[in-house]
Amino acid sequence: MKRIDLNCDLGESFGAWHMGEDEALLALISSANIACGFHAGDPTIMRRTVAMAVTHGVAMGAHVSLPDLQGFGRREMNVSADEVYAMTLYQIGALHAFAQAAGTRLSHVKPHGALYNMAARDRVLADAIARAVHAFDPQLRLFGLAGSALIDAGKALGLPVAAEAFADRRYLADGSLQSRREAGAVIDDASKATAQAIGIARDGLVQAANGLQVRLQADTLCLHGDGTHALSLAQQLRTALEAAGLHIAAPGAA
Amino acid sequence: MKRIDLNCDLGESFGAWHMGEDEALLALISSANIACGFHAGDPTIMRRTVAMAVTHGVAMGAHVSLPDLQGFGRREMNVSADEVYAMTLYQIGALHAFAQAAGTRLSHVKPHGALYNMAARDRVLADAIARAVHAFDPQLRLFGLAGSALIDAGKALGLPVAAEAFADRRYLADGSLQSRREAGAVIDDASKATAQAIGIARDGLVQAANGLQVRLQADTLCLHGDGTHALSLAQQLRTALEAAGLHIAAPGAA
Amino acid sequence: MKRIDLNCDLGESFGAWHMGEDEALLALISSANIACGFHAGDPTIMRRTVAMAVTHGVAMGAHVSLPDLQGFGRREMNVSADEVYAMTLYQIGALHAFAQAAGTRLSHVKPHGALYNMAARDRVLADAIARAVHAFDPQLRLFGLAGSALIDAGKALGLPVAAEAFADRRYLADGSLQSRREAGAVIDDASKATAQAIGIARDGLVQAANGLQVRLQADTLCLHGDGTHALSLAQQLRTALEAAGLHIAAPGAA
Amino acid sequence: MKRIDLNCDLGESFGAWHMGEDEALLALISSANIACGFHAGDPTIMRRTVAMAVTHGVAMGAHVSLPDLQGFGRREMNVSADEVYAMTLYQIGALHAFAQAAGTRLSHVKPHGALYNMAARDRVLADAIARAVHAFDPQLRLFGLAGSALIDAGKALGLPVAAEAFADRRYLADGSLQSRREAGAVIDDASKATAQAIGIARDGLVQAANGLQVRLQADTLCLHGDGTHALSLAQQLRTALEAAGLHIAAPGAA
Repeated sequence: MKRIDLNCDLGESFGAWHMGEDEALLALISSANIACGFHAGDPTIMRRTVAMAVTHGVAMGAHVSLPDLQGFGRREMNVSADEVYAMTLYQIGALHAFAQAAGTRLSHVKPHGALYNMAARDRVLADAIARAVHAFDPQLRLFGLAGSALIDAGKALGLPVAAEAFADRRYLADGSLQSRREAGAVIDDASKATAQAIGIARDGLVQAANGLQVRLQADTLCLHGDGTHALSLAQQLRTALEAAGLHIAAPGAA
Repeated sequence: MKRIDLNCDLGESFGAWHMGEDEALLALISSANIACGFHAGDPTIMRRTVAMAVTHGVAMGAHVSLPDLQGFGRREMNVSADEVYAMTLYQIGALHAFAQAAGTRLSHVKPHGALYNMAARDRVLADAIARAVHAFDPQLRLFGLAGSALIDAGKALGLPVAAEAFADRRYLADGSLQSRREAGAVIDDASKATAQAIGIARDGLVQAANGLQVRLQADTLCLHGDGTHALSLAQQLRTALEAAGLHIAAPGAA
Repeated sequence: MKRIDLNCDLGESFGAWHMGEDEALLALISSANIACGFHAGDPTIMRRTVAMAVTHGVAMGAHVSLPDLQGFGRREMNVSADEVYAMTLYQIGALHAFAQAAGTRLSHVKPHGALYNMAARDRVLADAIARAVHAFDPQLRLFGLAGSALIDAGKALGLPVAAEAFADRRYLADGSLQSRREAGAVIDDASKATAQAIGIARDGLVQAANGLQVRLQADTLCLHGDGTHALSLAQQLRTALEAAGLHIAAPGAA
Repeated sequence: MKRIDLNCDLGESFGAWHMGEDEALLALISSANIACGFHAGDPTIMRRTVAMAVTHGVAMGAHVSLPDLQGFGRREMNVSADEVYAMTLYQIGALHAFAQAAGTRLSHVKPHGALYNMAARDRVLADAIARAVHAFDPQLRLFGLAGSALIDAGKALGLPVAAEAFADRRYLADGSLQSRREAGAVIDDASKATAQAIGIARDGLVQAANGLQVRLQADTLCLHGDGTHALSLAQQLRTALEAAGLHIAAPGAA
């Protein structure tokens, strides 16, 4: 039976501010990327999110970010590889503490927002992230954009990796994502997004913007946690994937 | 041979701002309390400080603080026990990551500044800190003011503890510290501070403000890392303690 | 015709996080207390909130806070009078810039959360706030709890003041607020809160917890901006006050 | 008599961390760029720095920055023009409050670090800064790199501007700065730096890296406030400029 992971960003509230339907999403996903205080999350929220993930039996990962609460980690910053290495290690450790206190372990690390994008295309920063993950625990899985520098960096160090794909983003013929600046880059139609998810998960194929079917090897699909329809789309996606015969499970899970 | 630990707060630079003579102090102390980003320190500085401590063979501890960079963790805040538990766990984990990446382990946890003072007198907050330390690793040693609620909280959970005393603070007849608001509370004379340190470390005795000798059981003495004379006082203190026949070593070290 | 001001905390979103129904509340109130970045708000949000307040013709004030985003300014901190003076001036100036760029002026200053409570009972901190307001502009009105040290501090400097009362908090016979820790301190019943508001605004009287009518002189009533029923309660309150013959207007407005 | 302004970044301490010899530098300069809390400075330090500048009769400006304390405002961030507009206005207002409380006014605005560099080459961001300055006070002078987009943006809005040059940076034949990544870009020799300063201030000429004399129109020279030799270089520079017959004064000063 074919399997696919469903991951989602969680724990993105901060202090008095609420974001996301974490409890409901945990029932639908197999991997939770938990904010570590740099773009969202604070110690109290991290503790609570870890507890919820444990209850739902969902694999947990550190959702490491640039230090930018005000920009929600979405603004690229000109950080050095050394800074990225150190901030990655810091955030993994911080989240690890809550996992350890809860009697469990982290499964993965996924960079957030701007850091994710930078690590996808910049091998030096990608290597810094991979080295931090490896230095902490060489069994931690590195999540990154399918085909990206981050996946390459993880593999080069012998880390387990998970190549990520998107149900609702348009791909180009070379397997890369169409820029959000271009019209049609986001697939708003839920049934089309669902169809794309099944194609990727079951067949390793996606229909590119030019209409051609291209190969896309992915281990995990990213669900969005915010936005008005996030929850209903997530529910629809999971139901459709299971109906298509896919087993939803975290990478490496038994 | 009697032994005493010498601890000092390190890694208290932040970004472009420098504080403390860390490298020089590491040659004099047996335990380093390393800032974890809440009152000082940032990931890059934490990494560097851990590396220096490893080089010097000095035991490392998480110097956990209230979240207050601007106030350097010195302003008491009305935080709940749950908040203190979570912020303690977060900071321990963050520093642990650098220790683990360096192939070593943390030895202890010492609250910083306002949190140290609050935990000395408030058993509920003290318990929150002790529970966080215990949840992370029951072998981590909890540093606290000798005779304080924090030491009681650590013992109640079965944590190893280290009771801390000060060479340059005046004690009252009940073994508590004279308030800094009172004249004479700080012992500026280096030879008197040195004599007090020897009395505490070798004999378990300190001369109180009223002139009487009182018992003071301490496992570790706090050296100050900043101030103009910090380094020369630290040097003088170590030399005098060794001359008095004391073995300088971290608690629990072989 | 008797008049009363209705004030509400606005602009309390931060970065990607949303809070409050600002646009809808602006249609109901006469004074907006706008967060200045220390407990909530960021420059982009402040600019937008000022623009909305201008559109609605609502008087604007700086909602100055302790520096504590994570705690939403609700955790008391042991800050000095000098720190409070400086942080108050800083925040007034920051918000003033947006008002000036929009071609208008600030009308008032109201401390937020923990700072509001500290300034209500601590005359030294209250004086620091009043001095900062006066140093910036002696025509700015200082909002504070009716009967509090902050109102006294403002009057002592000759500042215009606005004594604040609450529709939904129980008062004691001496005119002070019943502690939230005691049962019944918050009036959940909307019609009772509305009746209390009318009593205060029209008659200068409130029924204390012991059943007696006590005098309560107030210039402004505080509406809450968050919570599920905030908006409907605010609507109900305004309608009832107008039906009772009160003119809703900012203090000092024509 | 020819005149030149000497400006320096001041007030760059933060909380417990000290940076710069502000008091000594104020005796040497005519314009102080005062940090506004985004890359350095806090309200207490801003208040103190403004007071010192007033005492020394030095013109004050807002040294506005990207929000990045940890990176000291030196890391470029992918911020929008709207964000830059709002953060500029916020910081000008915050500093203005201290000037107003001290009975004086701001004279200028100078972007700091990464924002300075971004505004030098990106006209959209430069326009955002210029619009913020203009919206606050069209008489505020905008400081920017000589020949940069920021100077153009200021002129386009009719703002008074001050073109900045550097005594210790090597220029290229087109009047732009040699990249710091290239060897020789920084002029370490104090007498050469002094000679360059005199050439710029008195003759409007600088010797480019290729040996040719090129025209460089500058209104203000930047002194560095940190580094080991900052103070002695600043002293040397001022003495040499005065000996060469130049009058040191803020632009626009009587």
